[in-house]
Amino acid sequence: MSRGKFITLEGGEGVGKSTNLQFITQWLADRNIPFIQTREPGGTPLAEQLRELLLAKRDEAVDPTAELLMVFAARAQHLAKVIIPALERGDWVICDRFTDATYAYQGGGRALDRALIERLENDVQGDLRPDKVLLLDLDPQIGLQRAASTGAADRFESEQLAFFHRVREAYRERAQAAPSRYAVVDASQPLVQVQQQLGQELQRLL
Amino acid sequence: MSRGKFITLEGGEGVGKSTNLQFITQWLADRNIPFIQTREPGGTPLAEQLRELLLAKRDEAVDPTAELLMVFAARAQHLAKVIIPALERGDWVICDRFTDATYAYQGGGRALDRALIERLENDVQGDLRPDKVLLLDLDPQIGLQRAASTGAADRFESEQLAFFHRVREAYRERAQAAPSRYAVVDASQPLVQVQQQLGQELQRLL
Repeated sequence: MSRGKFITLEGGEGVGKSTNLQFITQWLADRNIPFIQTREPGGTPLAEQLRELLLAKRDEAVDPTAELLMVFAARAQHLAKVIIPALERGDWVICDRFTDATYAYQGGGRALDRALIERLENDVQGDLRPDKVLLLDLDPQIGLQRAASTGAADRFESEQLAFFHRVREAYRERAQAAPSRYAVVDASQPLVQVQQQLGQELQRLL
Repeated sequence: MSRGKFITLEGGEGVGKSTNLQFITQWLADRNIPFIQTREPGGTPLAEQLRELLLAKRDEAVDPTAELLMVFAARAQHLAKVIIPALERGDWVICDRFTDATYAYQGGGRALDRALIERLENDVQGDLRPDKVLLLDLDPQIGLQRAASTGAADRFESEQLAFFHRVREAYRERAQAAPSRYAVVDASQPLVQVQQQLGQELQRLL
């Protein structure tokens, strides 16, 4: 049995990840491709508890390195218990955010040393990388307006606009540096066009 | 104002850390030395939440690398918010367990790669190391008997005897490799002798 494909969906606030995740999983189900859908941070009971600690608004300022290590702790657990077993039994894994989000939010947004993120990536993932990163790209000013209508802001969503511009730039730099592994999708287009492009990218992985 | 001294108290289960912490803090108070007493994992609200996640017994097996990263996440927060500010204002810091415990429990007990622990130590601590590590050394068979009388066992206390033998060996190897920074105290001695030795070690730091 061949290893499943590992697909991640990335992007800032309000880019339409939830809607497009539904499209992707329906696309796979229509073709009888076995898959699991999961998310980061999270995906196991312990990793979801870490997610809660990461997202909670708190009086205590969170040290950026502590935040980064919590993200990778959740990732190590998620990989060991969910992602790697699924890929090994031949399932595709559709993951809502992964290590590119760490480069974007902690590397770009928090301005943490990229070399530190890279060391942790290698220590935690070995040579495992997504087969394809689907990056929904959108001006954060538009994204934040869209996101504002969906409930109370968490600790990340409460950041200032400049933070989300750095997040977007870091995402785009990652995609430019390795164009064959990334598909940058203009999320300001009408949804039908966004999903047409997503379908084409998935088709290429078959 | 000169920087405070950073003292850690280390050892396995049932070696008498609590009793001897009281002795140490009383010794400092008697000499009007400003100090804080803290612990790892923990020492800030977020780090204490991470401690709870680490110690909780759970159905989900915890990946050793995830455990290690949670420990260092709590440490990064603790250092940034508590330990470094205290040392910089001239307070001594008395910490119940620190990075030697990581080498002992995750390196020895869980058999994780020491080089990975060392990379994280450098990334999180820079060149900050304890001025003195007070290691209470005891045969784990005796220690576990002592510890058994103090309530329900947490996820670490529930490990098998062989785990605690590895923990003890890792602690002793650390001490042997850098004898000037460690004081190994035979915790099987009568308490008065243990504390006489602790007092001598503290006196040397003045």
